[in-house]
Amino acid sequence: MPNSVLVVGSVALDNIESPAGRAEHILGGAASYASIAASLFAPTRLVGIVGGDFPEEHLQLFRDRHINLDGLQIDEKGKTFRWSGDYNDDLNQANTHETHLGVFETFNPTLPDSHRESTFVLLGNINPELQLRTLEQVNNPKLVLCDTMNLWINLAREKVLEIFSKVHVAVLNDTESKMLTGDDNVITAGKKLQNLGPEHVIIKKGEHGALMFSEKSIFASPSFPLDEVKDPTGAGDSFAGAFMGYLASTDDLSAANLRRAVVYGSVVASATVQDFSATALAKLSRDEVESRFNAMRQLSQF
Amino acid sequence: MPNSVLVVGSVALDNIESPAGRAEHILGGAASYASIAASLFAPTRLVGIVGGDFPEEHLQLFRDRHINLDGLQIDEKGKTFRWSGDYNDDLNQANTHETHLGVFETFNPTLPDSHRESTFVLLGNINPELQLRTLEQVNNPKLVLCDTMNLWINLAREKVLEIFSKVHVAVLNDTESKMLTGDDNVITAGKKLQNLGPEHVIIKKGEHGALMFSEKSIFASPSFPLDEVKDPTGAGDSFAGAFMGYLASTDDLSAANLRRAVVYGSVVASATVQDFSATALAKLSRDEVESRFNAMRQLSQF
Repeated sequence: MPNSVLVVGSVALDNIESPAGRAEHILGGAASYASIAASLFAPTRLVGIVGGDFPEEHLQLFRDRHINLDGLQIDEKGKTFRWSGDYNDDLNQANTHETHLGVFETFNPTLPDSHRESTFVLLGNINPELQLRTLEQVNNPKLVLCDTMNLWINLAREKVLEIFSKVHVAVLNDTESKMLTGDDNVITAGKKLQNLGPEHVIIKKGEHGALMFSEKSIFASPSFPLDEVKDPTGAGDSFAGAFMGYLASTDDLSAANLRRAVVYGSVVASATVQDFSATALAKLSRDEVESRFNAMRQLSQF
Repeated sequence: MPNSVLVVGSVALDNIESPAGRAEHILGGAASYASIAASLFAPTRLVGIVGGDFPEEHLQLFRDRHINLDGLQIDEKGKTFRWSGDYNDDLNQANTHETHLGVFETFNPTLPDSHRESTFVLLGNINPELQLRTLEQVNNPKLVLCDTMNLWINLAREKVLEIFSKVHVAVLNDTESKMLTGDDNVITAGKKLQNLGPEHVIIKKGEHGALMFSEKSIFASPSFPLDEVKDPTGAGDSFAGAFMGYLASTDDLSAANLRRAVVYGSVVASATVQDFSATALAKLSRDEVESRFNAMRQLSQF
């Protein structure tokens, strides 16, 4: 059986403003980005919930990429999770205007039996309580990654610490790493996060790349150079999706392959931010991924 | 004749506060850091000015490193340039408290005849008018690098552009690159700076490393990971000094060697910031430099 990536997280409709323009009612959500990114590399299963208002075209986008939707609940009477925000001040920091949880308010992730044997589990950025409930339903995963965000660190710190103690890979951005550890220095913060349980801690630094802290080493990946970032939404989710998809497809958890996975994550995230929503991500070909991966070597080798 | 590095810039006495503490009347100035860093690799000549109050122990530090002081003017009646500042809010951004130009007010760099044949010229961060006057006195340099800062971009923009048009390598930090180009995106800013004349533009990003823009490629160097930064003063000057010293010592201006020079620059700068003033920089051995250089490979290879 080939490995498959199970992705749980939000599926959303977003309104977004950035210096590059404005887009409304577009596909968003951590699980959307992560599953589309993972599906570039490996069979992918999406677990989440949408309302009756969720456009058929977005479901079709998932189907076109052979993303398994057996775990996507559709609550016909409810409304899809909606988020509005802007990046007008700073492309690295979203200002949230509005959040409407909709069907997410009562979401209880339930895995179809066929999903319980998933080997690679990506716990996207949702309430850590839901991440825990999802993980409990998976029988014997090879690799579990979780993402989180400032909201959960503030509201549910203990649950974030609990899920961190149960995963192999924790992914968060530099601001979140400071919030969770109280440490301004990203190097010592990364080491403190490792002490919480994860074998690997990945700290994302946006345009400055990513750092992976492993047992014996630190890996610094640059970001792929871009002349323009239109919409940074979903960069981190795409990173995590590609990271897990690549590892699932290669079935190799060596230190060297984990480094390559970080670079694939950075490469796929670089496409995501080149347009609003998952537009550029969904157009990204495997050839372009390989071409950017090779450019990353040129960028960093000495 | 082996290459030597000519360094012109400020030699100063600093008062500095950072989250790690406070230090007073310590050795500072762009040319001090740059010449000590360069002297790790190649014979170095310091061009600058100090007053009669400049402590003998600092002169002795330069002499101990065989830094040629024939071009260091000592104005016995004047006072050495003094700078006071803190990094209490942000280690990446100094708050200036006081600046006393002292002997620097009337400084006119004059190269001893023996210095006119210098092959590697490092125009440290001073008034671009003085950088131009220094450069005019060098006969036929192989490589000229200039650094600058926000002050000169604001006060003497045209002169900064003039010196940029005459050098091979321009070095500035990310904030300065935005000021000079008006471009928030560091990638397009780097390309615009290349259009001003320099063959290579290096944008320093502090803890996020450095980017070198060359004719056909971009090189991204991470910074050396540090658990603590005590005093960031002089990091950029040490970077430039080590970059030029390494290139002078190898006499190899190939693209690959320029990349290695950037990494040596990052490595030496990482030592500088581990203590106040040039204390840690002056203790840095060539063995430790090589050990950190190898660690940089481990950090970034995939």
